Amino acid sequence: MELEFLGTVAGMPVRDRNVTSICLKLLQERGTVWLFDCGEGTQHQILKSSIKLSKLEKIFITHLHGDHIYGLPGILTSRSYSGGKSPLTIYGPKGIKNVITTVLLVSQAHLEYDLHIEEIPENLNEGILFEDKQFLVEIAKLEHRINSYGYRITEKDQPGPLLSKKLEESGIPPGPLFSQIKKGRDIILDNGEKLIASNYVGPALKGRIVVIMGDTRICENSPKLSKDADVLVHESTFTEDLHDLAYKYYHTTSLQAAQLAKKCNVNELILTHFSSRYQGERLDQLLQEAREIHENTHIAHDFWVFPINRKNI
Amino acid sequence: MELEFLGTVAGMPVRDRNVTSICLKLLQERGTVWLFDCGEGTQHQILKSSIKLSKLEKIFITHLHGDHIYGLPGILTSRSYSGGKSPLTIYGPKGIKNVITTVLLVSQAHLEYDLHIEEIPENLNEGILFEDKQFLVEIAKLEHRINSYGYRITEKDQPGPLLSKKLEESGIPPGPLFSQIKKGRDIILDNGEKLIASNYVGPALKGRIVVIMGDTRICENSPKLSKDADVLVHESTFTEDLHDLAYKYYHTTSLQAAQLAKKCNVNELILTHFSSRYQGERLDQLLQEAREIHENTHIAHDFWVFPINRKNI
Ligand SMILES: [Zn+2]
Ligand SMILES: [Zn+2]
Repeated sequence: MELEFLGTVAGMPVRDRNVTSICLKLLQERGTVWLFDCGEGTQHQILKSSIKLSKLEKIFITHLHGDHIYGLPGILTSRSYSGGKSPLTIYGPKGIKNVITTVLLVSQAHLEYDLHIEEIPENLNEGILFEDKQFLVEIAKLEHRINSYGYRITEKDQPGPLLSKKLEESGIPPGPLFSQIKKGRDIILDNGEKLIASNYVGPALKGRIVVIMGDTRICENSPKLSKDADVLVHESTFTEDLHDLAYKYYHTTSLQAAQLAKKCNVNELILTHFSSRYQGERLDQLLQEAREIHENTHIAHDFWVFPINRKNI
Repeated sequence: MELEFLGTVAGMPVRDRNVTSICLKLLQERGTVWLFDCGEGTQHQILKSSIKLSKLEKIFITHLHGDHIYGLPGILTSRSYSGGKSPLTIYGPKGIKNVITTVLLVSQAHLEYDLHIEEIPENLNEGILFEDKQFLVEIAKLEHRINSYGYRITEKDQPGPLLSKKLEESGIPPGPLFSQIKKGRDIILDNGEKLIASNYVGPALKGRIVVIMGDTRICENSPKLSKDADVLVHESTFTEDLHDLAYKYYHTTSLQAAQLAKKCNVNELILTHFSSRYQGERLDQLLQEAREIHENTHIAHDFWVFPINRKNI
């Protein structure tokens, strides 16, 4: 499980940073990648990365501002051109379906795969967006000029690995009993001896929690989404000296993001979505003021890959 | 007057070539630039060029395929962000207005300048799209899977420069008589002497003709548009060995483009819009087969600037 940042600047591209897109790489976990937001030029960034469009399984859109969605039509058609056949689902605010279908229709684009578009109901404050055996994706509404959402991705805990060597040492040959024990069932052997399953299974693998926020002020739902996250990716459009500007434009300062992370027991905080006024030393300023509050803070740049390790239990 | 190629590959971007956009720089002539097509990432290419979005006056769209239009919303909003205030006009096939207004509306984009969108009537075969004192822009329908147009831009002839030194040598001091002569009016001096205006005005400046074609097979309107052009920019998606493929997908081979240029007395032929199968030596093949027919042929690459000089009269 890794995050790769494909665009880290707010509003419009600059020479060394593109507008927002974040890739959650789940190659080991499910052989696919998920994308959060898709500003113009995201497919160009992907061309320069190791990401394969054919592996793209889901796109989550935080809000409909242009710098977060104008790359959608191109990524959809290029995925088809380059041989993507598996279904793709897009989740996003109400309106996303209209814009995608209009653009694809007018440009007479034919996709060689099934495209599903699931719109978030406008009156939804928080809820479950997607769930399967491996992952739970919850959302909550944030506070921006336009409907904007935060995504909380929870990997489910996995049972620990079977300690097969230890079993063999106890005289149990590989076979059907192994899978019984893996499922946690205690076994009584023919000789009457009882094997306690938990003695032969390693510790459960704790699932990881990744939270990716859309553009927002810090709001009521911010802590609900962020609580105990392994990684919180938060916008940090301004430094704290521009607090009032951040408030006016419904954005967050790096200090505010750090305060949220600290309060919510977040492990790693990653700042992104910087106003283009921040370059070089001024970017350090964003980082420093956050680190004074929450030490485990990082600042994203384009093509930065961040591995999300499991916490020790 | 210069052409700058911002994207030269067909279908989807590759690492060193973006999808189609061609800039006609009219900085000396009218202090503005015009764009022909606007594939995704055109604003990113412009960032890497000397072109200023604020100088963008007109965008002409040849056809609505994604690789020719998906960069429009981003260029429109970034032009506003970066201080563009003057009106902008977009010309394109029917449907362009729907796609632009839908995208801008859904993404709640507010432009700080007047945007005019002029759709080409669907049943129009050929006609005048725009005319002012300096330029005439004519279009004609081409032959593609979707309505596609070629643009013929004619710069109007300009009167020659006043030979003021020669006038002063004839004893005429700078003043109102100068402008009379410049307008071509003969003058009778107080001493009865007659000044023939044409003796004091340099040769007229011949206007230039630039033709930019959309995706197409060679068709009935191809020679009408191309006749006597100083520069013809033509798609050349395939080499002649893929003649049948070109026909099937409504495209042109480099050989066919060269035959058109030769037949129509075109001065310079520029090939662009190459299938991504052509890289390195295979690109040379496109060029060589065209040059055997029409020597003055060039092959475009991204960021290539081509000055369009006036023909000697
Ligand atoms: Zn944004
Ligand atoms: Zn094309």
